[in-house]
Amino acid sequence: MAYKLHYWPGLPGRGEFVRLALEFAGADYEDFGGFGDDRDIATPSFAPPYLRDGDIVIGQTALILHHLGPKLGLAPQDEAGRLWLHQIQLTMMDFVNEAHDTHHPVGSGLYYEDQKPEALRRAEHFRTERMPKFLGWFETVVRGNPHGRGHMVGDAVTYADLSIFQILAGLDYAFPKATARQIGDYPSVAAIAKTVGQLPELSDYLASDRRQPFNETGIFRRYPELDDPD
Amino acid sequence: MAYKLHYWPGLPGRGEFVRLALEFAGADYEDFGGFGDDRDIATPSFAPPYLRDGDIVIGQTALILHHLGPKLGLAPQDEAGRLWLHQIQLTMMDFVNEAHDTHHPVGSGLYYEDQKPEALRRAEHFRTERMPKFLGWFETVVRGNPHGRGHMVGDAVTYADLSIFQILAGLDYAFPKATARQIGDYPSVAAIAKTVGQLPELSDYLASDRRQPFNETGIFRRYPELDDPD
Repeated sequence: MAYKLHYWPGLPGRGEFVRLALEFAGADYEDFGGFGDDRDIATPSFAPPYLRDGDIVIGQTALILHHLGPKLGLAPQDEAGRLWLHQIQLTMMDFVNEAHDTHHPVGSGLYYEDQKPEALRRAEHFRTERMPKFLGWFETVVRGNPHGRGHMVGDAVTYADLSIFQILAGLDYAFPKATARQIGDYPSVAAIAKTVGQLPELSDYLASDRRQPFNETGIFRRYPELDDPD
Repeated sequence: MAYKLHYWPGLPGRGEFVRLALEFAGADYEDFGGFGDDRDIATPSFAPPYLRDGDIVIGQTALILHHLGPKLGLAPQDEAGRLWLHQIQLTMMDFVNEAHDTHHPVGSGLYYEDQKPEALRRAEHFRTERMPKFLGWFETVVRGNPHGRGHMVGDAVTYADLSIFQILAGLDYAFPKATARQIGDYPSVAAIAKTVGQLPELSDYLASDRRQPFNETGIFRRYPELDDPD
């Protein structure tokens, strides 16, 4: 039975982390926009994305990937490795939340234009404090991988490799100047992202119109005033 | 072997969600302040809390509880129930993050006093939009529990029950007026929190000095200007 992925239409957002995993594995799935006919379910998620897998309906991006990982061959087989991978993904999603909050520091229910002074301050703090802290941690994770620096975890592609690719693409879209200045400090992370972008398993998808571009309704938005000054 | 819990000293914070689970179960554990002698470990967490359980070192509050749940008898035994519980806890931690960000909307590395105008706006949005949205979802979760409204999940105490107790206590500390005005809309959630506060398994702990009070260095802070106006 096909997986059913529910997420907001028109933006890659958090749904893209799940989509990359499904696409890499060649899984059979349908992509729905937002909440579908699934509202009357026993385990209603707080927000998209959520995934229907037969009788199971599961939300929270990192948890969806934790559930899918073993099924799609995108997680270590041992329990300790699987937990570590899940911990990394949870921390990635924390970082994604903070990237989002650069343009919505007051509230996601308000327009960017109505919280621009706050956004300018938060984005500066994000670029100067949070980006180095998170990227530095991801670099530490890769360098500590006993199987070498080819992957975030273990000796094969996991969903964390796919996710770091998406995160760096998002940073490069939203903060091109800050990212260009900082990325050299994190060569292992950058190398994994580059490798993922060239994986044959993803080439059809990345060239297709199923791969949605970043835009100004998503998590990573290009507002030049939020990037580094020249 | 005793569990070792690492968290910042002097505040309940995210560590308290783990502490409540360990205390409820009467588990043998040691409480460390901040990072201990564990920096040189294979799976270094991004931030406290993290837990050492023998050879495993695990971070991210919700993941620590996901790991501990079955060991402490605080999670359903079936995998679907355990995943649903984990999803609820992840959403609770999202809510906790947003509660934190009411006083630190620009950045956690800056003083509250240096982001007070932003905090006033974010706190209002939190009280009027986010509190009802999250509390409403928690109420929906309880009402949808096929085992009745005595617990968030299943027919026995889980770590989500302990966590909702801590969250409501935190809201009542940080936003006493807003909480008093809103809590009546969420009777099932409020009832669970009240029951947890009277559990015999927690009575010694809650009366002890191991139970740390909320204060203005933690997640839930009492800054009256961030609460509802009279």
